[in-house]
Amino acid sequence: MATRANSIPIPTLVSVDPFIPADQQKGLHNRWHPDIPPVATVKPGESFKIECVDWTGAQIGNNDCSDDLKDVDLTRVHNLSGPIAVEGAEPGDCLVVDILDVTPFDKMPWGYTGIFELENGGGLFAREFNSKACKAIWDFKGIYATSRHIPGVRFAGVSHPGLIGTAPSQELLDTWNKREGELIAAHVNSVPPVAFPPEPIGAYVGQELSPSVREKVYKEGARTIPGREHGGNCDIKNLSRGSRCYFPVFVKGANFSVGDLHFSQGDGELSFCGAIEMAGIITFSTSIIKGGVEKFAMKQPMFLPSPIDPLYSSKLIFEGISVDYHGDGKQYNMDATVAYKQAALNAIAYLQKIGYTREQAYLLLSAAPIESHVGAVVDSPNACVTLALPLGIFEHDILPKEEGLTKKDFGQAAIRSDGVI
Amino acid sequence: MATRANSIPIPTLVSVDPFIPADQQKGLHNRWHPDIPPVATVKPGESFKIECVDWTGAQIGNNDCSDDLKDVDLTRVHNLSGPIAVEGAEPGDCLVVDILDVTPFDKMPWGYTGIFELENGGGLFAREFNSKACKAIWDFKGIYATSRHIPGVRFAGVSHPGLIGTAPSQELLDTWNKREGELIAAHVNSVPPVAFPPEPIGAYVGQELSPSVREKVYKEGARTIPGREHGGNCDIKNLSRGSRCYFPVFVKGANFSVGDLHFSQGDGELSFCGAIEMAGIITFSTSIIKGGVEKFAMKQPMFLPSPIDPLYSSKLIFEGISVDYHGDGKQYNMDATVAYKQAALNAIAYLQKIGYTREQAYLLLSAAPIESHVGAVVDSPNACVTLALPLGIFEHDILPKEEGLTKKDFGQAAIRSDGVI
Amino acid sequence: MATRANSIPIPTLVSVDPFIPADQQKGLHNRWHPDIPPVATVKPGESFKIECVDWTGAQIGNNDCSDDLKDVDLTRVHNLSGPIAVEGAEPGDCLVVDILDVTPFDKMPWGYTGIFELENGGGLFAREFNSKACKAIWDFKGIYATSRHIPGVRFAGVSHPGLIGTAPSQELLDTWNKREGELIAAHVNSVPPVAFPPEPIGAYVGQELSPSVREKVYKEGARTIPGREHGGNCDIKNLSRGSRCYFPVFVKGANFSVGDLHFSQGDGELSFCGAIEMAGIITFSTSIIKGGVEKFAMKQPMFLPSPIDPLYSSKLIFEGISVDYHGDGKQYNMDATVAYKQAALNAIAYLQKIGYTREQAYLLLSAAPIESHVGAVVDSPNACVTLALPLGIFEHDILPKEEGLTKKDFGQAAIRSDGVI
Amino acid sequence: MATRANSIPIPTLVSVDPFIPADQQKGLHNRWHPDIPPVATVKPGESFKIECVDWTGAQIGNNDCSDDLKDVDLTRVHNLSGPIAVEGAEPGDCLVVDILDVTPFDKMPWGYTGIFELENGGGLFAREFNSKACKAIWDFKGIYATSRHIPGVRFAGVSHPGLIGTAPSQELLDTWNKREGELIAAHVNSVPPVAFPPEPIGAYVGQELSPSVREKVYKEGARTIPGREHGGNCDIKNLSRGSRCYFPVFVKGANFSVGDLHFSQGDGELSFCGAIEMAGIITFSTSIIKGGVEKFAMKQPMFLPSPIDPLYSSKLIFEGISVDYHGDGKQYNMDATVAYKQAALNAIAYLQKIGYTREQAYLLLSAAPIESHVGAVVDSPNACVTLALPLGIFEHDILPKEEGLTKKDFGQAAIRSDGVI
Repeated sequence: MATRANSIPIPTLVSVDPFIPADQQKGLHNRWHPDIPPVATVKPGESFKIECVDWTGAQIGNNDCSDDLKDVDLTRVHNLSGPIAVEGAEPGDCLVVDILDVTPFDKMPWGYTGIFELENGGGLFAREFNSKACKAIWDFKGIYATSRHIPGVRFAGVSHPGLIGTAPSQELLDTWNKREGELIAAHVNSVPPVAFPPEPIGAYVGQELSPSVREKVYKEGARTIPGREHGGNCDIKNLSRGSRCYFPVFVKGANFSVGDLHFSQGDGELSFCGAIEMAGIITFSTSIIKGGVEKFAMKQPMFLPSPIDPLYSSKLIFEGISVDYHGDGKQYNMDATVAYKQAALNAIAYLQKIGYTREQAYLLLSAAPIESHVGAVVDSPNACVTLALPLGIFEHDILPKEEGLTKKDFGQAAIRSDGVI
Repeated sequence: MATRANSIPIPTLVSVDPFIPADQQKGLHNRWHPDIPPVATVKPGESFKIECVDWTGAQIGNNDCSDDLKDVDLTRVHNLSGPIAVEGAEPGDCLVVDILDVTPFDKMPWGYTGIFELENGGGLFAREFNSKACKAIWDFKGIYATSRHIPGVRFAGVSHPGLIGTAPSQELLDTWNKREGELIAAHVNSVPPVAFPPEPIGAYVGQELSPSVREKVYKEGARTIPGREHGGNCDIKNLSRGSRCYFPVFVKGANFSVGDLHFSQGDGELSFCGAIEMAGIITFSTSIIKGGVEKFAMKQPMFLPSPIDPLYSSKLIFEGISVDYHGDGKQYNMDATVAYKQAALNAIAYLQKIGYTREQAYLLLSAAPIESHVGAVVDSPNACVTLALPLGIFEHDILPKEEGLTKKDFGQAAIRSDGVI
Repeated sequence: MATRANSIPIPTLVSVDPFIPADQQKGLHNRWHPDIPPVATVKPGESFKIECVDWTGAQIGNNDCSDDLKDVDLTRVHNLSGPIAVEGAEPGDCLVVDILDVTPFDKMPWGYTGIFELENGGGLFAREFNSKACKAIWDFKGIYATSRHIPGVRFAGVSHPGLIGTAPSQELLDTWNKREGELIAAHVNSVPPVAFPPEPIGAYVGQELSPSVREKVYKEGARTIPGREHGGNCDIKNLSRGSRCYFPVFVKGANFSVGDLHFSQGDGELSFCGAIEMAGIITFSTSIIKGGVEKFAMKQPMFLPSPIDPLYSSKLIFEGISVDYHGDGKQYNMDATVAYKQAALNAIAYLQKIGYTREQAYLLLSAAPIESHVGAVVDSPNACVTLALPLGIFEHDILPKEEGLTKKDFGQAAIRSDGVI
Repeated sequence: MATRANSIPIPTLVSVDPFIPADQQKGLHNRWHPDIPPVATVKPGESFKIECVDWTGAQIGNNDCSDDLKDVDLTRVHNLSGPIAVEGAEPGDCLVVDILDVTPFDKMPWGYTGIFELENGGGLFAREFNSKACKAIWDFKGIYATSRHIPGVRFAGVSHPGLIGTAPSQELLDTWNKREGELIAAHVNSVPPVAFPPEPIGAYVGQELSPSVREKVYKEGARTIPGREHGGNCDIKNLSRGSRCYFPVFVKGANFSVGDLHFSQGDGELSFCGAIEMAGIITFSTSIIKGGVEKFAMKQPMFLPSPIDPLYSSKLIFEGISVDYHGDGKQYNMDATVAYKQAALNAIAYLQKIGYTREQAYLLLSAAPIESHVGAVVDSPNACVTLALPLGIFEHDILPKEEGLTKKDFGQAAIRSDGVI
């Protein structure tokens, strides 16, 4: 018969408390550096679980005010669980990681999507909108999310780690810091900044380290905001539970870390804190392909998507080109980022016609399973990008009608206590 | 009983011969201008067919040499059928166009994908590859395409018009020419050029026009290469047969034109002549939503995708970020175009590992139903873009294997008669 | 350049006129018999086209009255094009048939769905409904069908041959006639009949035959109504354009025939003439796997479905069990047919709530891309079958609402001239 | 900040221990009867969790021998959690149940699929195979299942409750018992039995009841094996997490119960204990549509499928008709059950060619996300049913190849300790 004795749970290798600040917990770190030792080691083929705090480390609350977001301390992000070493992995190998599941904690069935202040975090439209802090709290009901701050929608999560990557070698780390440093130097007054240099303030490695190692890590450690050759903060929604990922290995053991779990995210994650950010549990198994970097000509991760990503086949799709026709009308040269922004602004304008505020629309496009395709990037001078709204996430029919669109009152997202939007 | 009398074929409003140069045929034009009169007028609700030559107007042949591509005359593109006026359409309305079908001519069951010379047409990697003319001929076998120049693949076409748009108003036309002119002025020595100014040489309108109108059209008419606010050469693969499209109307009658039919195309269409270019027949019906531009806040077309777009659920996905790690390692600032290029270069490198030449891989990514998603464009400084190879288009298993990839000999695409690649 | 000389159309091996009675045309036959010689022979790897009349051979007209259906002569069906021999095929081989495309004739852009009289043809609910002839004419608009007899719906066709099969050997033919004869003998007074014995009246082979062969074929030839081990009239909607089919070969050359083209059909094809019946053109290529019957343990065809079958992911699904709760309440023993019928009757009742007549609902479930799954056939005594209505085929939202369903007036299907329903 | 205080877990209304026999636990019952009182009451709109033991109540163990299955006590199934009353529900209403999630217990990450003995439980091929007990243990790794007893496959679960239904009224209960009693009477010696009459032995209701109520429930209570008008043991794999279900209400409060959780199941569930049976947790929310039975003409449940059901678009599909060509060759009259069985036997024969034993193949078809469609049920005398093997669940390519199929050694499923198969 079924007994506890013949039922072996999958082991949890990193345990965290999502309600305690990250820098008071073991097994977490928030910089990339080859000298951070692994906190656990696994054999190829084993299944195991890793718990993760939300990316900010409990800085954001389940309430109806965005002041916590306004004042978020971004020197302390992203809080990653790990590193996890895989026995036998060596530089040049390919680390195969099966993302077997990604779930929130039962005890914390909610997440948040945020718009950051122009001067503290930014986001894709930080300048266009002169962004003020604003957020939506999402309640998790099994596979679905709903929000009291964005009524009228319900959608299945494409749950995934926003951030997962192998540890860089010292050489790769130096390359990152050099090239990003040059970019910063070339845009020194940019708001928000174009990139983030190493920053000891807020740096954290939740394990015993010799003072010299800790100092080196805090001083040199690459910031976690951008995705890079090792994976990292790629924020690819389809790197989801059920996917199989292939990472290049740069250090012995591979030493991969994970965090920034997302219950859901749209392609582009446009408001920056745009996914439904959550704390939770990720289940993995791994294997190694010796010499895989050379075998597969890998310069960055590859992956196979999950068979259970949500399928919403009916979509309303918006186009955008590399002309800032929502702004000053400037013509850009084959710039897919500008094209993406126009498509998103078209969608936001449409959602406003059905009654959502600009803030709600911005948050919704960031958090829901929006799809954005590169249409064409060869028709000089206009790149063309599309952005698709899945119709099935809306409680009512939002299609274009001869009589126009019905404008409802959906209230507003959670804003600052001073009422500034 | 079934009789010819009770069977009314859908009427063909523009007829062309795909084997005759476009500038010897009626009903075609290759510039955008509000003064080009409609060649036919339809009532809302009617179904009708429009025949189209291939975009070059028969310049490219079904053979095994790319010299025709090398010498293609790009002042004579794109050859569009139309304009078609819709009764009752007025500026500010939304023109709804149902793309009911897109098929090649029975008498011409083939198409081509081309890489252009760096100095005549370019393409996304024209500079990186110092491109020489190269092409693949595709045979159409029902819904599938195969190529003797790229053995080992077969895929279902996402057939669509690469180019469809409403006529611009004079004001919109002037805006286009002004903004693109400024871009050209800012990049005057760029090879390939960043944009194309109005050019009377090669201009063509296949109908009776007063000399003054013809002169004005040829002198001012916008070039057809880029997509713009009216649609145009968006090269969106999912604007396919079965889709419903919403266009803003800028002139009385809407006066929409169509051409550049594609049997198939990958997201990005990266080699520029990257789709499977074909001549063929497109079936439409239309309707009008009065005042739709305001009702839907339209600044560019929207569309609903087709229920019959090919479904290849298994994919191998490559990532790219906005660092030119295939080139000089330069760090770009949140540039999705650079990220797309890295993802494509990763896929090309992978395809070379299984035996395709760089030219074949470049052509295949351009022509097959590749999907490219904008992963994230907020993680400064790195935009992240993905590119997905559908596994079902390959005759053999191309997945990463522990033992590495099997390299086969797939020959080479059609190259220049002088053998230069 | 593109020329007629370098453009070779796919050849048409059987040509028909869809407006001429089938028994006046060459290349058609309406019985299965090994002695019917091939009308054409192909080599493996060739692509070719076959034209087909509609299954009745032009007996049904595009009009608003069902008298033609009432009086249809079913001894003269199905009219098949062929047989086509494949060089090298021998008994025991597996014939691979790629169904590359299936399209209506441009000159006949319409089809029909019919309910037959209880006493002439029947249908799944012939007895329950005491069926009178009734029909819907469908207009083909590219990939879509709409009907003036069933307003409010539009759907993409899963176009396929209702009937395709290899020729039986004499031994297999004898087996069919014997086993079906026994069934007939056991149900001698059944209305409609349970099966159809060989019947010289109406039999037809449209080619030169010696009198003795003709007599033998007409006397012994198996009727075409049921699907059998060779394929035949399986009426599987997913044997559609783009699918690859594997057939067992029973005679030298395989000698396969095809007909009964369907623009669309629902799983179950419940009204018998339930698909959208059409005349049209089918494009094939073939190959042979020697000894495939043994290699794959084939007792019946297998197939790989098409990547372009319409995708309607949102569905309203009805359940049915093997209790006739729409009728006399009888409990059946694990009978999936009864379960399917209950699910269909539930769907019909639902469609009546939104305003369709019973006849329209019956026709719609037969013709549209309905999906029916076998839920479970092991929970004694109740088999459970589901039937799914794709929501995207309806012009308005048909989901269950708190306020109930809105009943519209959709008129009625085409009925008999005497008004009897 | 995120705190425990602002994080409210979804409440669990029924708690069970999957390692303790069901009849020692509260909140469970294993018969359908209107007099079983609710164990909990919810308000419409609330989310809540229900824990379930596996359907046998811990009778089956995680080991490599099928003796437990051989000796399973089927008078004690299915063990259901509930009933749950919904405030305000009355007979004639429609109870809307959102199945928000279905997961195994973390502490019991495994399930089983079983073949029952011909004389104890049976299964679709119990007589054909003269079945002996046999099982496969499946390990749950996040969304995937694998089995040491059926190597070479891995698939994502379509997790669902095999059994969910509202309580019958006394009238409906009487109808069930009457009609099933008549069937039993007509097949009195059938092995396995055609149906199961009320049976006090093994009956259980895990709550305080007056002796007279308990006696009545045990004496009259309907057995749980078949699905019926209220839902019940429908074993529809797509009633999965993420689906929305509509149930008719027969008693005040609706009083619905749930159990028999499946990690995965194929259409048909052919080996009877054919799903991957598991204990676990199901998350619900409910609402009520007053008078819904009349509004929607409901005679049985309806549902909307989940957007996250696994998508395996590549399939190898087998056909079956209503002739027992795997057995005595008998012709049946439009019998979809026979047709389904032939399709399944074709698939089993194919799987044996690649090396699976008959038992493994039978178990795999039962447990994996197999799709079975009713092709056509009108082509007298042959119903046609298809069964689709998703190719993506196999670790190696199983497609038909010119050289035939590669036969591997996959061992055997778990069999009886006496070695009898």
